[in-house]
Amino acid sequence: MSAAFASSSDSKMNKDNSNERTVDSVKKKSLGDKNKKSESNANGNNTIIKVKSVIPRRRQDLLKWYGWGYKDSMFKLEGNTASFTGNRYSICGQSLPFLPQWAIDNLGIDPARQPKIPEPPTNFPESILPDEVKAELEEIALVSKEGMDRLIRAHGQTLKDMTQLRTNSFPRIPDAIIWPESHEQVEKIVACASRHHFVIIPFGGGTSVSGSITCPVNEPRPIVVLDTSEMNSILWLDKEQLLARVQAGIIGQDLEREMRSRGFTVGHEPDSYEFSTLGGWVATRASGMKKNTYGNIEDLIVQTKVVTPRGVLEKSCCVPRISCGPEWEHVIMGSEGCFGVVTEVVIKIRPLPPVVRYGSLVFPDFESGFWFEREVARQRLQPSSIRLMDNEQFRFGQALKTENSWGGVLLDGIKRFYISKIKGFDPAKLCVVTLLIEGTAEQVDDREKKLNAIAAQYGGIPAGATNGENGYTLTFVIAYLRDVAMEYDVVAESFETSVPWDRTLALCANVKKRIQDECAKRGIDKFLLSYRLTQTYDAGCCIYFYFGHSTAQFSDPVTVYEEIEEAARDEIIACGGSISHHHGVGKLRKKWYKDTVSEPGRQLLLAAKKALDPDNIFALGNMAFDEQSNENTTVKSKL
Amino acid sequence: MSAAFASSSDSKMNKDNSNERTVDSVKKKSLGDKNKKSESNANGNNTIIKVKSVIPRRRQDLLKWYGWGYKDSMFKLEGNTASFTGNRYSICGQSLPFLPQWAIDNLGIDPARQPKIPEPPTNFPESILPDEVKAELEEIALVSKEGMDRLIRAHGQTLKDMTQLRTNSFPRIPDAIIWPESHEQVEKIVACASRHHFVIIPFGGGTSVSGSITCPVNEPRPIVVLDTSEMNSILWLDKEQLLARVQAGIIGQDLEREMRSRGFTVGHEPDSYEFSTLGGWVATRASGMKKNTYGNIEDLIVQTKVVTPRGVLEKSCCVPRISCGPEWEHVIMGSEGCFGVVTEVVIKIRPLPPVVRYGSLVFPDFESGFWFEREVARQRLQPSSIRLMDNEQFRFGQALKTENSWGGVLLDGIKRFYISKIKGFDPAKLCVVTLLIEGTAEQVDDREKKLNAIAAQYGGIPAGATNGENGYTLTFVIAYLRDVAMEYDVVAESFETSVPWDRTLALCANVKKRIQDECAKRGIDKFLLSYRLTQTYDAGCCIYFYFGHSTAQFSDPVTVYEEIEEAARDEIIACGGSISHHHGVGKLRKKWYKDTVSEPGRQLLLAAKKALDPDNIFALGNMAFDEQSNENTTVKSKL
Repeated sequence: MSAAFASSSDSKMNKDNSNERTVDSVKKKSLGDKNKKSESNANGNNTIIKVKSVIPRRRQDLLKWYGWGYKDSMFKLEGNTASFTGNRYSICGQSLPFLPQWAIDNLGIDPARQPKIPEPPTNFPESILPDEVKAELEEIALVSKEGMDRLIRAHGQTLKDMTQLRTNSFPRIPDAIIWPESHEQVEKIVACASRHHFVIIPFGGGTSVSGSITCPVNEPRPIVVLDTSEMNSILWLDKEQLLARVQAGIIGQDLEREMRSRGFTVGHEPDSYEFSTLGGWVATRASGMKKNTYGNIEDLIVQTKVVTPRGVLEKSCCVPRISCGPEWEHVIMGSEGCFGVVTEVVIKIRPLPPVVRYGSLVFPDFESGFWFEREVARQRLQPSSIRLMDNEQFRFGQALKTENSWGGVLLDGIKRFYISKIKGFDPAKLCVVTLLIEGTAEQVDDREKKLNAIAAQYGGIPAGATNGENGYTLTFVIAYLRDVAMEYDVVAESFETSVPWDRTLALCANVKKRIQDECAKRGIDKFLLSYRLTQTYDAGCCIYFYFGHSTAQFSDPVTVYEEIEEAARDEIIACGGSISHHHGVGKLRKKWYKDTVSEPGRQLLLAAKKALDPDNIFALGNMAFDEQSNENTTVKSKL
Repeated sequence: MSAAFASSSDSKMNKDNSNERTVDSVKKKSLGDKNKKSESNANGNNTIIKVKSVIPRRRQDLLKWYGWGYKDSMFKLEGNTASFTGNRYSICGQSLPFLPQWAIDNLGIDPARQPKIPEPPTNFPESILPDEVKAELEEIALVSKEGMDRLIRAHGQTLKDMTQLRTNSFPRIPDAIIWPESHEQVEKIVACASRHHFVIIPFGGGTSVSGSITCPVNEPRPIVVLDTSEMNSILWLDKEQLLARVQAGIIGQDLEREMRSRGFTVGHEPDSYEFSTLGGWVATRASGMKKNTYGNIEDLIVQTKVVTPRGVLEKSCCVPRISCGPEWEHVIMGSEGCFGVVTEVVIKIRPLPPVVRYGSLVFPDFESGFWFEREVARQRLQPSSIRLMDNEQFRFGQALKTENSWGGVLLDGIKRFYISKIKGFDPAKLCVVTLLIEGTAEQVDDREKKLNAIAAQYGGIPAGATNGENGYTLTFVIAYLRDVAMEYDVVAESFETSVPWDRTLALCANVKKRIQDECAKRGIDKFLLSYRLTQTYDAGCCIYFYFGHSTAQFSDPVTVYEEIEEAARDEIIACGGSISHHHGVGKLRKKWYKDTVSEPGRQLLLAAKKALDPDNIFALGNMAFDEQSNENTTVKSKL
């Protein structure tokens, strides 16, 4: 992955924005909220920026209903070659002649076979939302009971979601969708839910990979998905304070585009940021690729406003730090939709860096790259992003090479190392670190020099800016791979963990071994397992695993996959890794929740739920909440 | 304050450590805790470091029973001059000829008068802890019912505390003290409290300035203070991971001394750090002077272990970041003793910086210094510490000048600016910024150069390293001033807030005006009001106010003071400031708690209390908890 593409991520950005139309700025009207002070004081920038989203309200008009991303963007295997359709990404329109053979070798795919592309379903379960409740909701905001609107908001992006979606076999889908435009409308919707006893599931970008937004299977009440996509205005943007108050339904690419056009950046770029929302980042505790400069979501947030069934939770002041008892924003972060709806967030913004420089380093093996990263973290010299890919990812990057010059120049650079074995690097062991360095020219030069010097101590060799940039650009395209895989009966998924530095190498080795064993046990001989180190901290790092295997021989491939992933997660936890670095618990990782937070932690969760949502309106059933509506309020004492 | 002393803070450090004896390292024994994995994996550093604290178990043998700090350390007014006793600080043994006149001018003190130094009381309330419960506790750990042991742990360091202490008029003091040595003993004590229905107040360094550790006045149950001072071992120290697992009763100076002797630093230095504890830092959400490099307490902590009446709250893994639902460590931080006892904490450590350089800058007025600080924060160029003192503090520093050469050299430097008015600085407006820059020589040079360049843009002039160092050294001596003030019927206190950048100057001006008005209303013509900007962030800063006035004319001076401080806090909050940056809520600031966190925030607090401490064993009555034992579990619905 590291060394495959040569294009600018800015060109991608521009392409993504091809749907962008005018940006209206209107005079700010009274919002009826408590924050008049900070707003009226916002250095005169008292205008609401109404953002025209790239993604329309009818998501299915632009986005793939049965998989990831844009409907015009997908991998296609075409006999001896392959391609990526559309024109949104740099890889588009290129021939990928090495991909089919890679797919044959690694996953046992038969590229000659007809891909299984699903037809959109026409039958949907009857909505159980009473008409009179729908009518009442329609007085607040736009409501839909259309089948397709409901189906595409019944899921996130887990393998199970994708499988149920393609087979139209969700045991439960929402009964209606509502699109509020403001905090006040959300308050009314939640009050309506309290009166009429329906369930609300907040829906942002639908990119959850924890099962957090799927419907509780046995829920007898009507389920209304509250789609936040129409709540995407920038309520104020304060260039002096370097703060913005933003409605939580804004998607990452819209937010970043608006900021960049004004000379600023939020800098929060989870891999999902083309589609995921600010509110979703808060609810999931998101981490961004460039967290070393801009921080993870907990570092970016100054104030959050949350509608709960028991009222609006919000700190009264917009201060940089406070000692006022427990920090309830840290309870909302990670609440995974179970306590209410995040409606508005004050976030930090930063001036756009004068210089953005990509870089890459090649190391003889993963261990060398790992110790390099550890030393960089010890010296706290991490640039905006620093990632280490394992050899499988390097080789996958090679498989995505194009026939023409696309990516050619620097690929050839790598190839020279690789083929002529300069430095004796073994192509079957070699690993790549990609770098993204931001700052003034002086800062960037200095950082690059220091990083190269440390790399040299660990046998690393600079491999050029284009390789680095390609690695980052590719991130957004990789997300499309699972769809093509599924078309050929391959299941694939990613999962991540955080781990202390001293456990990292053992964890990677043990998880790999465990997956190999689990595959062997099940007669799976073709599978892909790859990992990268995506984030580093003082006390450890984040490891991201990619795992996929052919399933032609299994009647229930999802269960097979899930059993193996569960074994891998058990191994991760036994090795000192966490339940999740940034994906969250959702429904997929409930098994490990209690042991992670301890029984008093679980009691705190149940108590917070009872305090904020005693009637379980937000019956998402994540973490320690069972899917049955009332279990979550039954607090069982250990004493 | 900025320009008064010339001595190294290291020499202070050494003096503080004069009581230090041997440091025993013993082979680590099994601790019976759940963290065997991380401990046994701690790169072979599996030895408990038993720390000999500077402060003995009988605190009163070393510390002043009726005021701040060491009993041998105090200011003394002696007619036309003044001094500071003892030999622990650089100021000791010096004549301070300018201080009496400053005290006359600013506070109306009559230095010729006999100071009021209180005699230790001999009568104490009868302990109501039943003998059989005491006997049961004695099987767990050392217990005392001695009057003096109880009295000196009945309070923190508020003005009210000090007044009640000097007049032996606490409405309630604890009935016994217990000194556990381990997490396991704390578990037993809490279980005992559950069985026998007594209250536990966790006590660390006793430096609270929020009333958080004073006894609930109307509590009918026996109150046992759990003194954590014997829980001060370093359970492991991992030089590779740069982590240490430390018992939470360790005091700042002990922790820092042990780390420094091994080449490391924690770097957490609240002004109280000579006496305050790690567990206290967690419970209060402490902020350290050098937070720009080492972080505030929330940035330093990797894992906390807390004994609650409902079990041990602790994350199972020691990872740098996690997405596992709400972050319960952020609920323990700020819990102010009301949920349980923090027993162990894994904290980050850092290698000692090769270079530590002090610096100072003189600005023509507070506004110039402020805009300098704001620009430094915007560029994220803050060194370890950067502080802006107002003109009153500058002049107070002048009043602490010594007759001899102590502090002379650079004072003269300032004096030259000041007297000859180079640059036309007005001595009645001039302000000083002190700097503490850490890093490699190259980093420190570079940072200093950049800071000086920004300063020049705002009219600032470098004023030398010694002035900077003196400012920081003086921090620890200033804490002793209130005691001498009280001996002359002057009440004094500090209070702090955090505030967005754009509100800071208005807040300072308005609070000053409000205090002037409140003083005028009460016929107080001599008072001191001074502030400094002590911490800066992306989104704002911390302002620290000092306020004192003569009270000879008042029968109830504490109430007069408290009324004025309350008016000041109302003004702070009206100006967009917070209830507290790092002192916490305690009992003093309960009035503003609910409005700060909103009603759902208050409900979360009550719910957390009920989940962790349903019988209100930790009946400290802080934040939204009333002092009556059961009010806190009565959750009243807003709906």
